[in-house]
Amino acid sequence: MTGRTDPATGRRPTPEARPAPLMNNSPGSQTSLRKRNQQRVIEALVSVGASTQAELARRTGLSTATISNIVTLMAKNGLVSLTPTTSSGRRAVSVKLLTSNGTVAAGIGFGRRHLRVVLVYPDFTIAAEENVILEQKYDPRDGFDLAKEVLTRLLEQTGISWEALSGVGVGIPGSIDRRDLMPVIGTVWAEWAFVDVVVELEDRLGVPVVLDNDANLGSVAETIWGLHGGATNLVYLKVGSGVGAGLILNGKPFNGATGVTGEVGHVQVVPDGQACRCGNRGCLEAEASVQAMLDRLSSVTPIQSTEDLVRAVQAGDVAALRVIEDAARLIGRVVGDLASILSPEVIVLGGPLAVLGDTILDPISRSFARHVLPLVRDATDIVASTLDDRGEALGAAALVFHQAAVRVI
Amino acid sequence: MTGRTDPATGRRPTPEARPAPLMNNSPGSQTSLRKRNQQRVIEALVSVGASTQAELARRTGLSTATISNIVTLMAKNGLVSLTPTTSSGRRAVSVKLLTSNGTVAAGIGFGRRHLRVVLVYPDFTIAAEENVILEQKYDPRDGFDLAKEVLTRLLEQTGISWEALSGVGVGIPGSIDRRDLMPVIGTVWAEWAFVDVVVELEDRLGVPVVLDNDANLGSVAETIWGLHGGATNLVYLKVGSGVGAGLILNGKPFNGATGVTGEVGHVQVVPDGQACRCGNRGCLEAEASVQAMLDRLSSVTPIQSTEDLVRAVQAGDVAALRVIEDAARLIGRVVGDLASILSPEVIVLGGPLAVLGDTILDPISRSFARHVLPLVRDATDIVASTLDDRGEALGAAALVFHQAAVRVI
Repeated sequence: MTGRTDPATGRRPTPEARPAPLMNNSPGSQTSLRKRNQQRVIEALVSVGASTQAELARRTGLSTATISNIVTLMAKNGLVSLTPTTSSGRRAVSVKLLTSNGTVAAGIGFGRRHLRVVLVYPDFTIAAEENVILEQKYDPRDGFDLAKEVLTRLLEQTGISWEALSGVGVGIPGSIDRRDLMPVIGTVWAEWAFVDVVVELEDRLGVPVVLDNDANLGSVAETIWGLHGGATNLVYLKVGSGVGAGLILNGKPFNGATGVTGEVGHVQVVPDGQACRCGNRGCLEAEASVQAMLDRLSSVTPIQSTEDLVRAVQAGDVAALRVIEDAARLIGRVVGDLASILSPEVIVLGGPLAVLGDTILDPISRSFARHVLPLVRDATDIVASTLDDRGEALGAAALVFHQAAVRVI
Repeated sequence: MTGRTDPATGRRPTPEARPAPLMNNSPGSQTSLRKRNQQRVIEALVSVGASTQAELARRTGLSTATISNIVTLMAKNGLVSLTPTTSSGRRAVSVKLLTSNGTVAAGIGFGRRHLRVVLVYPDFTIAAEENVILEQKYDPRDGFDLAKEVLTRLLEQTGISWEALSGVGVGIPGSIDRRDLMPVIGTVWAEWAFVDVVVELEDRLGVPVVLDNDANLGSVAETIWGLHGGATNLVYLKVGSGVGAGLILNGKPFNGATGVTGEVGHVQVVPDGQACRCGNRGCLEAEASVQAMLDRLSSVTPIQSTEDLVRAVQAGDVAALRVIEDAARLIGRVVGDLASILSPEVIVLGGPLAVLGDTILDPISRSFARHVLPLVRDATDIVASTLDDRGEALGAAALVFHQAAVRVI
C-alpha cells in the first residue's frame, strides 16, 4: 500500500503497475512450495503471535516435521526467534516472528478530535501507546507533525531505535480508494480531502507507511486483540464522528473492487432527512453518528462533546438516553440489512459509545431483530468492542506486520 | 452438501460432523503438496473448462513443467482427458476434466411456475436441456417426480447412461441453512417449508444431490457462462417470484455463517408496507418482486402472468411500465445499499425481467446512482443476465463439478 506520487501525473502507481509480491515470482518449483508453506507459518504467527511448533502444526495443517524444518530455516534466516518454553508441562519451543527490517511496528489512528499512537511487537504485545486530544477540525498536516512528536517520544521512552521500526500503519476516519490510495471525497471530513497521507507521513517519518480506513483497521484489531478473534465473518461497526463498518469475510479483510466497502454510514435511513457530506440526504451517518447526536442535543442541553454525552447517558439523563435510543434504532435497522446480506458470526460495536454497553446494544439489538430474518438474527452476536478507541491504531500496527509478512518471503 | 438424515435426531449431520475432505488429511508431505497443486489445476479446469497446458500454467501460476507432470499423472488416473489441438497456430494439448464417477452433471432449477433440467459436460458445454411450465403452488414432491421424468428423457435423448451421471445439483427459490441443508422458513414459498430436498431427490434419483439457493447458483453460472465471468466480486440479483442475491466475493461464492446471504429481498423499503412471508412488513420482496407487480396490476388490467407483464411492457403499456419503474426504483435503492457495503465490479440482473434490458436497468441505475457513493457508482456495472432463466439450473450443474473436484483429490 505504499508508493510515491508520479510527478508527471500527480498520481501514485495503481496496484497493477507495482511489482508483484515476491511470493508470486517463481511458482511451481520445489522452492516455491517451501515458500508457500513458510507463508502459512508466517500467516499463523501474524494472526496469533508467538506459538509453539505443535500449535503451528495444528493451525497450518502441516506436519510437525515440516514445521520443524521450516522454523529452523526461518530462524537461520533471521525471520523468527526460537525460545525454549513449556507447554502442558512438556518442553517445547516458542516461535516468534521477527520482521526483516525491524522489531516493532507503529500504528497511528487519527480521529476527529484525537490522535493515538501505539508501538507493537511482532507477537502483538503492546510496547507503548499515547492518546492526544486535538482541537476539532485540526489541520491534518498539524496532526502528522504531532504524530511524529508522539512517535519519537514513545520510541525514546521504550528505548527502541528508529532503525528498529519496520513501518507505520495509519488509519484515517474516511474511506481510502485502493486504486490510488487517496481519501474518498464525501466520506472524509473536508479538511482531509485531497491529503496524500502516505506521502506526507513517509516524508516526515522516513519509514514505509501503510494506510487504511479506521473501521477496516478496527476489524483487523478485533481479530487479534478482540474477544471474537476466531470469527470467520466479523463486522466491526464504528460509530463515531462518522459511521462505517470494517468487514472480515472468510477470515480476511474484504476490500471489494475499490476498497470502499462497509459504507453503512451512507445507507439512507430517513427519506429527505439531514444533509450528508456525501451529497445525499438522510444517511445513517447524518442521522445517527455521534456528531448527529451532539447536533441534536447541544442546542437544548449543556451536552457539547462525546465525553459529555457518555457521562450524561451514564447519569441517566433522559434527553441523552432518548437520542441514543433513536440513533440505536436506526443503526440496528441498517446493521440488520447488512446481516441479511452477509450473515456474519459477530458484529462488534466500536467507537466512543461502546463503553455504554447494553444501554446502546439493547436498542440496537431490538431494532436489528425486527429487520433481519429470524435465522440470521439467532446466528449473529452483537457485542461491544473491548478495545475502547484503540482499535484503529492497533489495527494499523498489525497491518504493518501483515505487509511485512508478504515482503519477507 | 449431501448427507442423510440421522434417524435418531431427524437432522442431517452438520458440516463439522462430516468427514473432512481428503485434501486436508495428510498435509505437509510431498504428496500433499502435489495434491495441492493438482487441486489448483482442477479448480482452473472447473472454472474455465478445457484448457491447454500453457493456459493452465498462466491461470495457476505453476510452471509448465509442473503442469505437464500433474496432467500426465491425472490422465493416468482417469481424472482428465488429453487431446491434441492447436493454439495460436502451434501444437498443444487440450486438458479436459473428467469426474471420478461420471462424465456429465445434471442441474435442476425449481421456479415458482417452472422447472428446468440441464445436462452439462465437464468442459461446461451443455448436452441437453428442457424447461417445463408448472402450475403455481405445485407440490414440491410432484416437482421432484417430474424432474426425474425430464432427466430420464434428457439422458435417453443424448444416449448418456445413468451410470455416467456424476451427480445432480438442485436450486430452489429460497435460502438454504448450510448447517442442516434445510430450506429456511420465511424465505421459501410455504409449500417448500420443511421439505428435505436432498433426501427426497436422492431417494428418487439414486445419485448424490447437492442443493443451493437459486440466486447463489445464478451467481455461479454467471462466472462460467455469463459475460462478466472474470469479475472478482459479482452480485447476481434475481428478481422473480421473490428477490434475492447471490454473492461471488474474492472470486468465490460467499455463504457467511449460515448460508443465508444476499437476502436483499428482506430489506425493508416501505415502513409498514405490504406484509412479507418473512413476517416483516414492506420488504423489497413484498414490494418489488414480480409477484408484487402482478398483484398490483392484475386487479385493474388483464395482466395475470409474468409473460403477460413482459409482453405488456414491451408493447409500451403505461400501467405496466409504471409498475416496473416503481419496482426498479426500490430495487436500485437496495442494490445501492448493497454496493455501499460490498463495492462489487458488476451487478447482474437475472430472472424473467432481465429480457426487458434498459427498460428496467435504466430506472434501477438512476435510483442506484442516487443512493450510493459516486466513487462506488462509477466502479460498478449494472447489466442484464444473458442466461435468461437458465442461471440456476446451469449453476446447479456446475456445483456438482465443484463438489466433484473436492472429492477426487
